[in-house]
Amino acid sequence: MRAEIVAVGTELLLGQIANTNARWMSEHLAAIGVDVVHHQVVGDNVERIVTALDLAASRADVVLVTGGLGPTGDDLTRDAIAIAMKAPMVRHPELEQMLRDKFAGFSTSGSMPAANLRQADVPEGARYLMPERGTAPWLVAMLGGATLYAMAGVPGEMREMMRRVVLPELAARTGGQAIRSQVLRIAGMGESAVAEVLEDLFASSSNPTVAYLASMGEVKVRLTAKAASASGAEELLAPLAAEVRTRLGDVVFTDRDESLEEVVLRLLGERGVRLSCAESLTGGGVGARLTGVPGASAWFAGSAVAYTAEAKRDVLGIGQDVLDGPGVVSEPCALAMAEGARRLYGTEVGLALTGAAGPEPHQGAAPGTVVVAVAADDVRHAQTFVSRGDRERVRRWAEQAGLDLVRRYLEGLPLPPSSA
Amino acid sequence: MRAEIVAVGTELLLGQIANTNARWMSEHLAAIGVDVVHHQVVGDNVERIVTALDLAASRADVVLVTGGLGPTGDDLTRDAIAIAMKAPMVRHPELEQMLRDKFAGFSTSGSMPAANLRQADVPEGARYLMPERGTAPWLVAMLGGATLYAMAGVPGEMREMMRRVVLPELAARTGGQAIRSQVLRIAGMGESAVAEVLEDLFASSSNPTVAYLASMGEVKVRLTAKAASASGAEELLAPLAAEVRTRLGDVVFTDRDESLEEVVLRLLGERGVRLSCAESLTGGGVGARLTGVPGASAWFAGSAVAYTAEAKRDVLGIGQDVLDGPGVVSEPCALAMAEGARRLYGTEVGLALTGAAGPEPHQGAAPGTVVVAVAADDVRHAQTFVSRGDRERVRRWAEQAGLDLVRRYLEGLPLPPSSA
Repeated sequence: MRAEIVAVGTELLLGQIANTNARWMSEHLAAIGVDVVHHQVVGDNVERIVTALDLAASRADVVLVTGGLGPTGDDLTRDAIAIAMKAPMVRHPELEQMLRDKFAGFSTSGSMPAANLRQADVPEGARYLMPERGTAPWLVAMLGGATLYAMAGVPGEMREMMRRVVLPELAARTGGQAIRSQVLRIAGMGESAVAEVLEDLFASSSNPTVAYLASMGEVKVRLTAKAASASGAEELLAPLAAEVRTRLGDVVFTDRDESLEEVVLRLLGERGVRLSCAESLTGGGVGARLTGVPGASAWFAGSAVAYTAEAKRDVLGIGQDVLDGPGVVSEPCALAMAEGARRLYGTEVGLALTGAAGPEPHQGAAPGTVVVAVAADDVRHAQTFVSRGDRERVRRWAEQAGLDLVRRYLEGLPLPPSSA
Repeated sequence: MRAEIVAVGTELLLGQIANTNARWMSEHLAAIGVDVVHHQVVGDNVERIVTALDLAASRADVVLVTGGLGPTGDDLTRDAIAIAMKAPMVRHPELEQMLRDKFAGFSTSGSMPAANLRQADVPEGARYLMPERGTAPWLVAMLGGATLYAMAGVPGEMREMMRRVVLPELAARTGGQAIRSQVLRIAGMGESAVAEVLEDLFASSSNPTVAYLASMGEVKVRLTAKAASASGAEELLAPLAAEVRTRLGDVVFTDRDESLEEVVLRLLGERGVRLSCAESLTGGGVGARLTGVPGASAWFAGSAVAYTAEAKRDVLGIGQDVLDGPGVVSEPCALAMAEGARRLYGTEVGLALTGAAGPEPHQGAAPGTVVVAVAADDVRHAQTFVSRGDRERVRRWAEQAGLDLVRRYLEGLPLPPSSA
């Protein structure tokens, strides 16, 4: 089954927002075995929307339209669908009533603007569905031989329709074919090195397939298998995933698609030890990531963000000799910061991150220099490296390296040496 | 001038990445007065790429293609351009040499794979340019009546070609028409309330136009004017921007497109006072945002992330009576945390953030409850509210509210009351 996504909205063409809806939809369609073959984006122009819908219906089995279902004069998707279907528009009294009820629930003052009633219009022959969120009724129609689903562009409403209606209906239609994916996530090894290690495994394999996705400080390897049944797909996947894991070794931090911070919190729980941080370079980024995981407070006590030399001295107790000698971007300072965090928060494990984010050098350290350190009763280890890229990238690499250092310590793995 | 963006890459159709290139390109094209009328995304399939290029060239003056210029067998954009141009492919010895030189610079081992030489192929009649980053030569060709620019999909390489070649060439061609935009950024007021206040101003205005963009805890109002000259566009813009600012009042935190953290750091510098934070709910997010700004250390000392009650007591000195009485999600606790941060870091101003991010209630506080507080010699003010949405959203709203509380204090504005 082939699908095409048509996003409607001038804000996309003006670059005010990225088409993240298409990404989310594509990912979830791929997971149930639907091939997404094209994306289109058109502005709030009824003729262009009609042309886009006709083109999509001519080459896809399913057309998914987002945006342009709201109440304003710019919302033209309903009209375009009616024109493409060559169907008259019919106003539905029960939809009018639902819109009035929803509006009364939202608003504390006044009555619904008359324009909102446009949302009660449905092209003849189409069916509609009412979302729990928002006020824009969803439309389902046949256009040529294709099934067309139209939904609001608001991400939460789009996801609601996808989950409640589109994905179940399409999964039922693709019935008989199951797709299963497994994602292995890797820290401390670059994308090209990962691909080289795995190259021959996938040179001749079209099922399962492999895809690499590199983001800052991390590589994801996604294996995808198709089979007549879910268990068949899983049987294709399992031996390959095991082989990938064997070849890559301990740089794989999870094969369950957990984030690195989730893995660290899970390992802390398994070991029954608590973590605190001392952050200079990353400014609180590691704390923010760890506390983004529900329940983090059981194993993460906090982070002392000490951005200045004075704060490192006064808050973390770094000696003036360290600040004046090796300086704030040094392994002695990082180790003292990790110990300072342990002491301040009373935790078993301390992680410290310092460095020079750039664009300027910091206390003699080149921009991009990162020092991370882990301290506990049985470890005192620091690692220095130089990251390329801008400030944001350097900070993100530092977060990954710091969390991965804790992960390796907790798993009893060899700790990485300095490379700068 | 009409432009169309064609992104090539199966990874986009699988939902592995969002088409953020199209967003960036669209934004920068709009700024020089180029109308982007369509986006297309196609996979790594030569026939479909040819069809997409033909369609784009039939309806646009400029076609911008991203992706598919790399060295692997999946990189088919070069071939598709040659087919669409009906031109033979010519291998350029000087490109071969450049590729070999670049490869030698990247690699410490071995010689360049023969497949990489595909990147030295250029359709006859097209011109090529060599990027500073990466190895994929850019292509510029005529296709029908349209000018086609093809560039790598790697964001950094795309931006390099856009800045060095595409935007200057197109700006020269649009000569005579200038577009200027101004963005006002707003905290503490919702999108629909902002739109209501400004409604009549824009009801009949097509130049300048207005666009609203709401993200978590913030609304952007973008005014865009077109005129024969830059100064003409600015003259159209200025009175309207002033009127918008007058109507909205002190919820506008900047009219220079600075982030809220940049505004706070600027105001701290203007007042000559330093800030520290105590973060529970946000876990370091405020510190990470402030330290994301180069030079932050002059006015931001650090943040004590105290995620547990014990850390609040031991690190920030919160009294056991506060922890046992009003509890960690309370205005007395937030005020004590702000004072604790001031004391710990020795700063003039302290900001505290606590609350219940969800999904579970926290110490009796409903999920979404946020308490922020600011303390200095001349202020002790706390604000409580309830944010809707998931954990990430609640945390982001808390960051905005906390930073905006400091902003309002530093500007001498009335501080918002509690609303929960």
